[in-house]
Amino acid sequence: MESRRKFLQKMALPALALPFLPSPSWANLQKPFISPYQGPVLRVAIMGLGGYGTRVADAMKDCQKAKLVGVISGTPSKVKDWQSKYGIPAKNCYNYENFDQVKNNPDIDAIYVITPNALHHDQVIRSAKAGKHVICEKPMALNAKEGQEMIDACKQANVKLLVGYRMHFEPKTLEVIRMREAGELGEIKFFQGLVGFRVGDPAQWRLNKDLAGGGSMMDIGIYAINGARYMIGEEPVWVTAQETKTDPTKFKQGVDETIQFQLGFPGGATASCLSTYNMNNLDKFFLNGANGFAEMQPSTNYGPIKGRTHKGELSQPHVTHQTVQMDEMASIILEGKQVVVPVDGEEGLKDLKIIDAIYQAVKTGNKIPLKS
Amino acid sequence: MESRRKFLQKMALPALALPFLPSPSWANLQKPFISPYQGPVLRVAIMGLGGYGTRVADAMKDCQKAKLVGVISGTPSKVKDWQSKYGIPAKNCYNYENFDQVKNNPDIDAIYVITPNALHHDQVIRSAKAGKHVICEKPMALNAKEGQEMIDACKQANVKLLVGYRMHFEPKTLEVIRMREAGELGEIKFFQGLVGFRVGDPAQWRLNKDLAGGGSMMDIGIYAINGARYMIGEEPVWVTAQETKTDPTKFKQGVDETIQFQLGFPGGATASCLSTYNMNNLDKFFLNGANGFAEMQPSTNYGPIKGRTHKGELSQPHVTHQTVQMDEMASIILEGKQVVVPVDGEEGLKDLKIIDAIYQAVKTGNKIPLKS
Repeated sequence: MESRRKFLQKMALPALALPFLPSPSWANLQKPFISPYQGPVLRVAIMGLGGYGTRVADAMKDCQKAKLVGVISGTPSKVKDWQSKYGIPAKNCYNYENFDQVKNNPDIDAIYVITPNALHHDQVIRSAKAGKHVICEKPMALNAKEGQEMIDACKQANVKLLVGYRMHFEPKTLEVIRMREAGELGEIKFFQGLVGFRVGDPAQWRLNKDLAGGGSMMDIGIYAINGARYMIGEEPVWVTAQETKTDPTKFKQGVDETIQFQLGFPGGATASCLSTYNMNNLDKFFLNGANGFAEMQPSTNYGPIKGRTHKGELSQPHVTHQTVQMDEMASIILEGKQVVVPVDGEEGLKDLKIIDAIYQAVKTGNKIPLKS
Repeated sequence: MESRRKFLQKMALPALALPFLPSPSWANLQKPFISPYQGPVLRVAIMGLGGYGTRVADAMKDCQKAKLVGVISGTPSKVKDWQSKYGIPAKNCYNYENFDQVKNNPDIDAIYVITPNALHHDQVIRSAKAGKHVICEKPMALNAKEGQEMIDACKQANVKLLVGYRMHFEPKTLEVIRMREAGELGEIKFFQGLVGFRVGDPAQWRLNKDLAGGGSMMDIGIYAINGARYMIGEEPVWVTAQETKTDPTKFKQGVDETIQFQLGFPGGATASCLSTYNMNNLDKFFLNGANGFAEMQPSTNYGPIKGRTHKGELSQPHVTHQTVQMDEMASIILEGKQVVVPVDGEEGLKDLKIIDAIYQAVKTGNKIPLKS
């Protein structure tokens, strides 16, 4: 891929003229010929080479503005695999002891932190101190206090901090948001977000409080929280929540199996959400307005997202979420691009404040007021 | 209809032989010829001649085992209209002052109370004291204390008390219940019931606390409560609830506009429900099990109910709910028929206990334990 990309970039202008030439075999290749990108490219190192890291790396092969150039991992065999799979030079490979030295590496612009939640705080701050922009998987931290510290550290280091909210770039999601903002749904009354899956291997980090910081709420649950906010388009003013645990062996103290939570919004809308590690592939959004509605199912998985509104089926094309996300994030970081739904640290912090309040509501049984 | 029914009943046996005769014009008429009913008939007086009373009366035209024979109303002009529309003799017409005298009327077996909620308690007890079986619209009363008194009064009078749970006889609903009971959905995890509509005329009895006893929860909300119970097939052990009011002028003190509530069940399932008077035609059920699911929308309106499960579309035929309900209730009262989902006073009381707890949860903000 590496050498072909460079080749294509060099060939870009002549390639544009191809329609007037006989078609050679390589003329059928793909997009770069038709729309060659000549602008700046965000050179990214991925920290954490697990399943989702691999998904992002694969998706980045199709990016125009972002490029995977480095890795940070504690597992040398994984580094070796990635080097050969993604063409990563040895000088761009780090481990968790030495990655602060990335500050001396001019060939890496940003670090994408894709590690267990509990590690984000320190890793993001170290990345910022190394002078690199940071993209952090969601939830960005274990609580709002950590999130604020990460924002502050990035500000102080004069680097950008983004959070991996891939749904903020998903075409059907953006169409529903456009419809709401255009008033096509009328006054927004209700949002429902049901998200969850049945968690497998009981030994995985997701079920380890020390690494995950919680249970389903710290993982899949954030899709419902974040979804409620971008679908309703307001910041909630209160939250109530109830926990249900049917398997205390698998879901230990501090690791939530199922939490229902409800949000109240200043305009009078309410949200009813469920986050679970104990139901099969639950992934439903429903937004109800005075004059229309939107239903999405699946609503937040890797797609294709499916949905309909009172006007009919949503027909926006599926795109690989992580490809678009990384191209868009490159534009945000490199060109200061403004996007419809923010993906910055402040956005991540808003979700963390709600997560804090949800756990407080579960613990106390009280309705917790929220300040935006 | 009256005289035709009698004619058909008399003609029933000869009519059975019709296929062997040339077809006279009236041979094409309908069901009674093919399946003439010769058994006992429940003779019903309807109390309260409003919109829903009219719907029941019209549906009863197609009943085999139940027959509309009388009315109780405070509006003489309505009584007159009904007499001519449904062929009701003057001797079977009562008002709210004199209807206790129905005890001297051997031609009325049962009274169907279809009046504002706050009136049910006294009217059911008076009907019972008049020695008549009672069918009462839901919610059967304003609270569990009233409901218990109604049950006791009917027991003491040795009459049956049923509650108008028409969905308990709806074919697609019964198919989902059958699937659940057969284990086809696996362990039940979650039920969601979203019910509501935008209430119109602010002067109607539904928005008058003295007549309705509350707001949406005392009207449409009971469909979600009852649905959670028959869909999950257990009695809940706790409830939490949150009220949202955006229009305190239309929805006065004690009249709820929107309430979300959550139920916990002994098997570990949870339910998330919404009852509202301020959203358009919200009527969605979702039952989620470990091995399958059922979705219904509309789920409780007059139908046709639509739904699908993990096995595909539900294809059971639509039947007019109130026709089936009244035929089935006649069988319960006259023949002691056992039904899959009960419709007796005890069933109504279970919902009232949950309504009491929901209002308590709204008021206190606490999780309210429920005893079944």
